[in-house]
Amino acid sequence: MSKGARSVSILGATGSVGKSTLDLVERERDRFDVVALTAWRDAAGLAEAAKRVGARHAVVADLAAYADLRSALSGSGIEAAAGEAAILDAAGAGADWTMAAIVGTAGLAPTMAALRKGGTVALANKEALVSAGGIMTKVAKDNGATLLPVDSEHNAIFQCFDHANPGAVRRIILTASGGPFRNRSIEEMRVATPAEAVAHPNWSMGAKISVDSATLMNKGLELIEAFHLFPLAHDAFEIVVHPQSVIHSLVEYRDGSVLAQLGAPDMRIPIAYALAWPERMATPCERLDLAKIGSLDFEPPDLDRFPALGLAKEALREGGAKPAILNAANEVAVASFLDGRIGFLDIASIAGETLQCYDAVAPATIEEVLDVDRDARAVAARMVERLKH
Amino acid sequence: MSKGARSVSILGATGSVGKSTLDLVERERDRFDVVALTAWRDAAGLAEAAKRVGARHAVVADLAAYADLRSALSGSGIEAAAGEAAILDAAGAGADWTMAAIVGTAGLAPTMAALRKGGTVALANKEALVSAGGIMTKVAKDNGATLLPVDSEHNAIFQCFDHANPGAVRRIILTASGGPFRNRSIEEMRVATPAEAVAHPNWSMGAKISVDSATLMNKGLELIEAFHLFPLAHDAFEIVVHPQSVIHSLVEYRDGSVLAQLGAPDMRIPIAYALAWPERMATPCERLDLAKIGSLDFEPPDLDRFPALGLAKEALREGGAKPAILNAANEVAVASFLDGRIGFLDIASIAGETLQCYDAVAPATIEEVLDVDRDARAVAARMVERLKH
Repeated sequence: MSKGARSVSILGATGSVGKSTLDLVERERDRFDVVALTAWRDAAGLAEAAKRVGARHAVVADLAAYADLRSALSGSGIEAAAGEAAILDAAGAGADWTMAAIVGTAGLAPTMAALRKGGTVALANKEALVSAGGIMTKVAKDNGATLLPVDSEHNAIFQCFDHANPGAVRRIILTASGGPFRNRSIEEMRVATPAEAVAHPNWSMGAKISVDSATLMNKGLELIEAFHLFPLAHDAFEIVVHPQSVIHSLVEYRDGSVLAQLGAPDMRIPIAYALAWPERMATPCERLDLAKIGSLDFEPPDLDRFPALGLAKEALREGGAKPAILNAANEVAVASFLDGRIGFLDIASIAGETLQCYDAVAPATIEEVLDVDRDARAVAARMVERLKH
Repeated sequence: MSKGARSVSILGATGSVGKSTLDLVERERDRFDVVALTAWRDAAGLAEAAKRVGARHAVVADLAAYADLRSALSGSGIEAAAGEAAILDAAGAGADWTMAAIVGTAGLAPTMAALRKGGTVALANKEALVSAGGIMTKVAKDNGATLLPVDSEHNAIFQCFDHANPGAVRRIILTASGGPFRNRSIEEMRVATPAEAVAHPNWSMGAKISVDSATLMNKGLELIEAFHLFPLAHDAFEIVVHPQSVIHSLVEYRDGSVLAQLGAPDMRIPIAYALAWPERMATPCERLDLAKIGSLDFEPPDLDRFPALGLAKEALREGGAKPAILNAANEVAVASFLDGRIGFLDIASIAGETLQCYDAVAPATIEEVLDVDRDARAVAARMVERLKH
């Protein structure tokens, strides 16, 4: 271990955020000492990454991938492990800094394990804050852990927010690209295909999040995340549509000053911010050239065409289990849309109806969040079935 | 004096920046205790302001205005004084916070007097940093004083700059409105009248600074100011033309993140920032509404049509007395243009020729700066005469 190096673990090392984090760690090897890398089941990819950065532990969640991992790491001196308990052990191994980039509800428990150790946790898992924001931030606070958001919007807000003086902030404005259907009518959206919905203009992303970007549910969920990360009232969070996605978000102060973070659409920028925080590290990312970009445009979000935004605001206002229900119902609806079982506009309908029909007491533990998540999925799935007939 | 109130003095209280500062002080009277207000010769305006905010001292620079000031303050309990020595006494009275808003070279000595007391000095005087930047920042450092820039661009940079970690900053980008002649050809500028040149699109300003905005000399001088305020190499400062003047300036970090400050074109925003720093205070300023503004445009500055920018970069690169010479020559040239004695394009020609023809050793004191200033004015004045024949 290099003297003075920051010990880091990456949960979800073979995904897009995990790979970008590894790319940055590799660029300044002396600065980082890699404790553990984890993956779902990509044993070959994980082993290769672990060898490249000299990790001490490599863990796959899927027990079936263990044999492959062990053989790929044979002779490397890197310890192989598998299973959910091993993932939790890796997450709680006490690294100074942990990237929590396991996608979906599978990321909740490992993120909590890292937070309980009191280090710095870079959070790339959206479900953690949407479904379990209150639980997550309380555990962070109780254990002296620091949560650094990696989502470009929340990272932008984090960079512009006066953490020593939160009462000076009046408003937080998240920017939304508007997605691929920004200029489509409701009638056009009614017949939109999955292929059209996943064609995001500015960022290259997975299918699920691309659809969320087309419905603007992604931005709605980000609004809920922002509420948990920054101590303002729920109505202090707003959205402005900004097609170029150059301004990643803005923070307005009491005196009328507005601070914004801008940059190229490269996830390595917010990841590098989190990785080096409170310092900065160099990245090879493209430099922002405003004269070349020429123009930045803004328009108000259209709640009629994009009802998902209103649903997210409603879930945020009602609190309790509602955000977890919205998130779960949306996942079911998006999967059904991608499978061709429902139309594009049905996504928000199903999310909205699930939000109306189902409620639960505010979850107090991750297990209770997972219960709400499971039940909300079942309700949403029944609605999908009903819609098909 | 209110308990825990910040004691403040305003040098140049009857000018535009002084009045805005008074407006903000009045809004939170409990927060501020006014030590001294000064003015050039507007005894009535000064007396009225001093009574309104309950100042302890009111000082006019012009001895001829003393009788008027004394009679206007009679019975108020506010102490009246006059003359340059009295101004220096007021500046050095040891307020926690001083607004240095005396225009021109007359502001140099009082600003130095305030800095020597080691308090916080909000700097609205451009000449101070352009002509005497090195001297000014050294005195601030030696005496533990804090310099807070009030110019909207420098205030924006100050808000976005990581003062604890300056090595993390890669580049500073000042925005320029482009002025009233942004889209004019050289031929059109050749015949431009003073009335056309003073019509600034975004800010309401005096004639001199409006002409500087038309030549872009204002932005060039701001580049020099920025160099003295923020510890980066001279080639790390750039300019981008941004006609809407909504983004007031930007700071680019090593990792590719760019932070920017935005706001309505209201000087009370940067003044309030300086007045409340390191906290914030509420202002009645218009809130930024990006969706209403719709679009922010950017273009590279045209050094051929606006040679003043190149001159400022040259003066910054050469250092020493050159910035003071450029500033002095420009003042003479602008006055001559406003008087109808020379054409618009002659302003930069005279500034450039003076910069070429005259040099002096780097001034080490304010007196030496004033000597350079006087001599450069004489050289520039001769060039104006030569041009007329």
